[in-house]
Amino acid sequence: MSIYKYICSDCESEFEATQIESNFIYLCPNCGLAEKNKPLKGVLEIEYDYNSISKTLTRDNFLKLESGKIWLYPQLWPVDFAKFNSRIFEKLVLPTNNLTRYNIDGNNFAVLDETRNPTLSYKDRASILVTLKAMELGISEIAAASTGNAGSSLAGICARLGLTSHIYVPKNIPEAKRIQIEAYGANLVVVDGDYDLTFDKCLEDSKINGWYNRNTAYNPHTIEGKKSAAFDIFIQTAGSIPDVIFVPVGDGVIISGIHKGFSELSKLGWIEKSPQLIGVQSDKSDAIVRYIDTNTFEYKAATTIADSISAGAPRNLNLAVKAIKESKGFAIAISDEAILISQKEFIKSTGVFCEPSSAATYAAYKNLLTDKRLEDKSVLHLITGNGLKDIESLKR
Amino acid sequence: MSIYKYICSDCESEFEATQIESNFIYLCPNCGLAEKNKPLKGVLEIEYDYNSISKTLTRDNFLKLESGKIWLYPQLWPVDFAKFNSRIFEKLVLPTNNLTRYNIDGNNFAVLDETRNPTLSYKDRASILVTLKAMELGISEIAAASTGNAGSSLAGICARLGLTSHIYVPKNIPEAKRIQIEAYGANLVVVDGDYDLTFDKCLEDSKINGWYNRNTAYNPHTIEGKKSAAFDIFIQTAGSIPDVIFVPVGDGVIISGIHKGFSELSKLGWIEKSPQLIGVQSDKSDAIVRYIDTNTFEYKAATTIADSISAGAPRNLNLAVKAIKESKGFAIAISDEAILISQKEFIKSTGVFCEPSSAATYAAYKNLLTDKRLEDKSVLHLITGNGLKDIESLKR
Repeated sequence: MSIYKYICSDCESEFEATQIESNFIYLCPNCGLAEKNKPLKGVLEIEYDYNSISKTLTRDNFLKLESGKIWLYPQLWPVDFAKFNSRIFEKLVLPTNNLTRYNIDGNNFAVLDETRNPTLSYKDRASILVTLKAMELGISEIAAASTGNAGSSLAGICARLGLTSHIYVPKNIPEAKRIQIEAYGANLVVVDGDYDLTFDKCLEDSKINGWYNRNTAYNPHTIEGKKSAAFDIFIQTAGSIPDVIFVPVGDGVIISGIHKGFSELSKLGWIEKSPQLIGVQSDKSDAIVRYIDTNTFEYKAATTIADSISAGAPRNLNLAVKAIKESKGFAIAISDEAILISQKEFIKSTGVFCEPSSAATYAAYKNLLTDKRLEDKSVLHLITGNGLKDIESLKR
Repeated sequence: MSIYKYICSDCESEFEATQIESNFIYLCPNCGLAEKNKPLKGVLEIEYDYNSISKTLTRDNFLKLESGKIWLYPQLWPVDFAKFNSRIFEKLVLPTNNLTRYNIDGNNFAVLDETRNPTLSYKDRASILVTLKAMELGISEIAAASTGNAGSSLAGICARLGLTSHIYVPKNIPEAKRIQIEAYGANLVVVDGDYDLTFDKCLEDSKINGWYNRNTAYNPHTIEGKKSAAFDIFIQTAGSIPDVIFVPVGDGVIISGIHKGFSELSKLGWIEKSPQLIGVQSDKSDAIVRYIDTNTFEYKAATTIADSISAGAPRNLNLAVKAIKESKGFAIAISDEAILISQKEFIKSTGVFCEPSSAATYAAYKNLLTDKRLEDKSVLHLITGNGLKDIESLKR
């Protein structure tokens, strides 16, 4: 059982866990705001007492844990795992050995392959924590807005645990993702609009119906759940974490989650510095790249073919930018054409069947091969989703 | 390094490993025959010196091994793993914890979830061994005939290892499987005919071009590679193997592979008896069910929608029948309609996104729930392929 509190990432107010959770609050009670076509305000982060954790959990013991099983170190999670029947965890195991090193054309890099998670995407890391939190709170119906992966992830994890899911999707999501969501038995709601409208509609219906909401960034456990990749990289590299990680960025939750994981490893004194995070976007969905350049958010409808990183208003913009800046990384936008070419190259050379959004990281990497910022740095690509969910892109 | 010989499963002739391998022989030199629309004759099996293995490898030590990594027990494999750079193995790790227990409507069963293997199917177990054997023999081009999974598996594993693959498919395979094969960079050959014709065409071209051939059952390492699931079940259940295993059956290689694995565990004295194997077919591709009933093989074109178990002439009929009889199991045919209904039910209740052929096992299980032969028996379903490869079936 862990001790933790919630902190607002904008106004820095602190809240007791019970204050937030027993009232089903998601955003900061003081400054939180979810507005149409805008990044969220008042996204909450969870903070633990790292000093006391480091007294009971040592670096050496942590490195002996099996990767992919968050319940093995309950001190770092905001759910009381001890309450659950251990059979539940069998259904939530992530791949234990999914970090592989490659050498392509003389370039060495590692891949964290999330294409073989329970529902074949990184989103499972968030869905696992969110569903366990919902169960702890006694809620059995959960809703999410999604361009595909988050929805199929929540639907699949709910199917494993016997929970009910309500998945809101914009009408243009890839067919395979829609079919995957329906096959898991979810209640699918197709919204006649884009992701931003879908996001708002799902929030509204969740409030009306009393469902737990898993909208990305809005629910702080989506960010929290996604930190587990940092721990798995730490374990699988036996503590020799990479210097640089390429991360596909849409709403910005994965990049802030992974940054939080590494920050916690720093706070525990187990790593010297966090990897530099390079946020990769499509140039047809580049709000975060533009924000870093200009310090201004401007809404522009996203039109990229890489649906998993398509977000005109990245909900988690503030924390994503913070992750990039604090880690001394940067953001880069890639053309859809380069993404599609890189997808083919990447699959051919690695045998890892990634989707377009993940291939964007490889496209960015190739653009930066002679860049001084990568000189002598060890690189890892976060491959976040399986290409079988969107075979249309490969047909082109 | 292991010591092994080849034994003909029909005429029982024995051959030294070098005699077979240095001459690139696949079927028995005495009686082997690959004829159009007929099961193969003279399929070779590999035998080790189990007495001497049991002197160096104990049950307790074996059970401490990590599941999914065949190179950890080289004594039981016909490849000298020590020759390879260990980095290769990183790319070939199978899921380490893919055995999960479920309770649906009061019925308990376990699932071995092969839908998250490197290319999302059981076929990877064969492809891994075949590619390593090819590399040991100094061959870098490998061919296979396939209705989809075996082809995408070989293509994907070859991509991981930098080998060239030639994949022969009948023209009616699901689109996602074809795209997956091409994306892995394979040389795809679409044959204007059914699987049986494709099989023969691939054999012919392999001979002409000097490619190593991975045709299922024809290459003895396909059966051998598929035995690893038995070892993984043994490890993941800590030796408490299930009483009954439901296995989808097309060509009959998976069922004979898994039977071989359990037979070896018996020969090593590590289990008391092998699980009963229940071979599940579609009633539109039921050659093995009919053979067991009548003791006669009769060719009938297969028309099932479950493409992974579609085989009018099961190449490995003899060994599949032997596996079923020796394990005191039986075979059962299920309608395509029941398969599709069961696919939906299974995905919804377990969150495991299986393809139709795998759902056939669940359909068979439901038919047999009140059957005396299953009374008080622990059951495991072998879920062999991912439903995302064939979303057409779920659309119906």
